[in-house]
Amino acid sequence: MKNLLIASTSTVHGGNYLAYLLPELQLHFAQSKSILFVPYARPGGISHEEYTLKVKSFFALLNIEVNGLHEFSNPTQAIEKAEGIFTGGGNTFLLVTQLHQNNQMQILKKVIESGTPYLGTSAGSNICGPTMQTTNDMPIIYPPSFETLGVIPFNLNPHYLDTDLQSKHMGETRETRIKEFHQFNAQPVIGLREGSWLDVKGEQITLKGELSARLFRQNQEAIEVESGNKMEKFV
Amino acid sequence: MKNLLIASTSTVHGGNYLAYLLPELQLHFAQSKSILFVPYARPGGISHEEYTLKVKSFFALLNIEVNGLHEFSNPTQAIEKAEGIFTGGGNTFLLVTQLHQNNQMQILKKVIESGTPYLGTSAGSNICGPTMQTTNDMPIIYPPSFETLGVIPFNLNPHYLDTDLQSKHMGETRETRIKEFHQFNAQPVIGLREGSWLDVKGEQITLKGELSARLFRQNQEAIEVESGNKMEKFV
Repeated sequence: MKNLLIASTSTVHGGNYLAYLLPELQLHFAQSKSILFVPYARPGGISHEEYTLKVKSFFALLNIEVNGLHEFSNPTQAIEKAEGIFTGGGNTFLLVTQLHQNNQMQILKKVIESGTPYLGTSAGSNICGPTMQTTNDMPIIYPPSFETLGVIPFNLNPHYLDTDLQSKHMGETRETRIKEFHQFNAQPVIGLREGSWLDVKGEQITLKGELSARLFRQNQEAIEVESGNKMEKFV
Repeated sequence: MKNLLIASTSTVHGGNYLAYLLPELQLHFAQSKSILFVPYARPGGISHEEYTLKVKSFFALLNIEVNGLHEFSNPTQAIEKAEGIFTGGGNTFLLVTQLHQNNQMQILKKVIESGTPYLGTSAGSNICGPTMQTTNDMPIIYPPSFETLGVIPFNLNPHYLDTDLQSKHMGETRETRIKEFHQFNAQPVIGLREGSWLDVKGEQITLKGELSARLFRQNQEAIEVESGNKMEKFV
């Protein structure tokens, strides 16, 4: 049974890395002595090693060992044997390029569908939908494809930002961009605000955290969905 | 001799479409009885026809006729014969996809290099650099390539937004995103604020408008360049 925690952000304002998710993660990875970390998104361009160290020091609090996917001579086997997997945030184009180039997208999908507990934050959450096409990131590298894991039937927009009606900035709002997406693509998009996450158990996708999420569907007005709701009702 | 006006935005806050550029455009298109409009970026998903009508009604003020590139049975010839070209803003991924699929990128580059006056705003400005990889837009469609016109040696980031030190939002700042770009790409990036534009005459690229621009170069600290400066000094 699928078992995912798909978070908008790793860090909420004023908090430490992953701290707001600590009680959830204790439950989520209760059976995992170690987890495999996918560091490919490299936030701010940090190295795989630096990124993995940051994650190691958080999970040490939970007595869980962390190994970076880049450390393995046989990464396919590492994914298959993992007791838990965490893909961190950063640049989604870079993450998706690496996963495709290393032929790891399909194997990752397979183990997630078989029940390996998965945690994604930001870019690591983006890849859970059918495509990465509602990312906020810059296209710093050209991926072989925009297709991603497709383990949930929604695309995600993490760090969702409401339209600031006071703003004098003339760039597109997040809502405008998602509407442009729906000119060409049919899957619903969940605008997931910071501090919100999706708790996926099998085909049940529950919105968690204090805030509502904004749901965009092709040819329909966007709606607010309150925390606690099952998102799969809205596909 | 190249003759381009590359603007961050079509519209400044509180103003009408292209109004702040009106005196510049009178000079820029002084020899053009008609201009060819490239509507492919479709802001907010509007149709080629709707978008072209909007542009027609602005240029009517200058007594300049406007024809949409989508209206021609022989678009290559339309580009070659154009007395002026304007590419409007919208979604850069969509614009670049269409230009590549229609084999129009190279012919557009050729006529611009031969001296056809060109105006770009937002997405239409993005395509003037070597690649579209510093766009702010969502990847709503998968382009055959991220390469663009390369008629200036900088990438652009239109609608440049300074880091808001008061913000509680944890998404990446524009500066962070551009630094990630420079982990993988060498060309300088001009963060062009709204109300700013580049005036290109041959190889001279002058920053115009009231504001400074933010210049990012690989392995260097970002700097502010004041209006009136020649940007080609900084390559």
